[in-house]
Amino acid sequence: MTQTSTSCPLCTPSSEQLLWSDTQFRVIGVNDDQHPGFVRLISQAHVAEVSDLSASAQTRMFALLVGIESAMRQMLSPDKVNLASLGNQVPHLHWHIIPRWKDDLFFPDSIWSAPKQRQNSVSITALRMERAARADDLWKALPAVCTAVR
Amino acid sequence: MTQTSTSCPLCTPSSEQLLWSDTQFRVIGVNDDQHPGFVRLISQAHVAEVSDLSASAQTRMFALLVGIESAMRQMLSPDKVNLASLGNQVPHLHWHIIPRWKDDLFFPDSIWSAPKQRQNSVSITALRMERAARADDLWKALPAVCTAVR
Repeated sequence: MTQTSTSCPLCTPSSEQLLWSDTQFRVIGVNDDQHPGFVRLISQAHVAEVSDLSASAQTRMFALLVGIESAMRQMLSPDKVNLASLGNQVPHLHWHIIPRWKDDLFFPDSIWSAPKQRQNSVSITALRMERAARADDLWKALPAVCTAVR
Repeated sequence: MTQTSTSCPLCTPSSEQLLWSDTQFRVIGVNDDQHPGFVRLISQAHVAEVSDLSASAQTRMFALLVGIESAMRQMLSPDKVNLASLGNQVPHLHWHIIPRWKDDLFFPDSIWSAPKQRQNSVSITALRMERAARADDLWKALPAVCTAVR
């Protein structure tokens, strides 16, 4: 039986852009204008750490992580992908899968670092609109990507 | 043959506290007084992303990651473990494996976020000394932990 916690915002989400789910994991889209295509891979079971999962669930989670990273690289061509499982604020296992670009407000620091002072030139704005369109395609493609992960 | 880059600080490290290595990966200790026991798992091959590794190398890397996380939890009992593969500054695949405590200067934010204003009480100082001793034991135990990972 899946463990849940009634006080956990990832067990009882109030609003999420759900892209895909099954009994073990779900993938949600994160609206972030600096990082279009940002997604989170969330354990359905309320556990805090990777090593709380069974070995088979760990294997599946990492396969999903790599599948999503690969699709993100293929469809968005970001300058870098950032993967992070922190959970200090919400200790329910979830991965941030973040496309990074050299012109984003935080690069080359983490997205949790202080933002840089950067100007939004016309060319950057055009680039971002183009990325946002590709990010939309990525989100649409992810259900098939995740379903194909064995 | 392992790929290397002469301009990459992780291919040609100037000083590292090497805890364990083989042909595919190495583990180094990171000196950080807020996060005693902090280690990095580094790919020996100069690749940027997880999905650049072969499937078998990915599997081994994740097994090492979970093995280290498990040992860290067992020996340090941190309030949380943070796992992150960022690589924006040094695009050579490496994982930060960070023990977090509620009294560390950044909790519950990331260790890359702005530090909080916190007082170092006598009891916190004593706790940290005790943690540092256990962190030392963790670093000594990691070679056997990593060697045992198949």
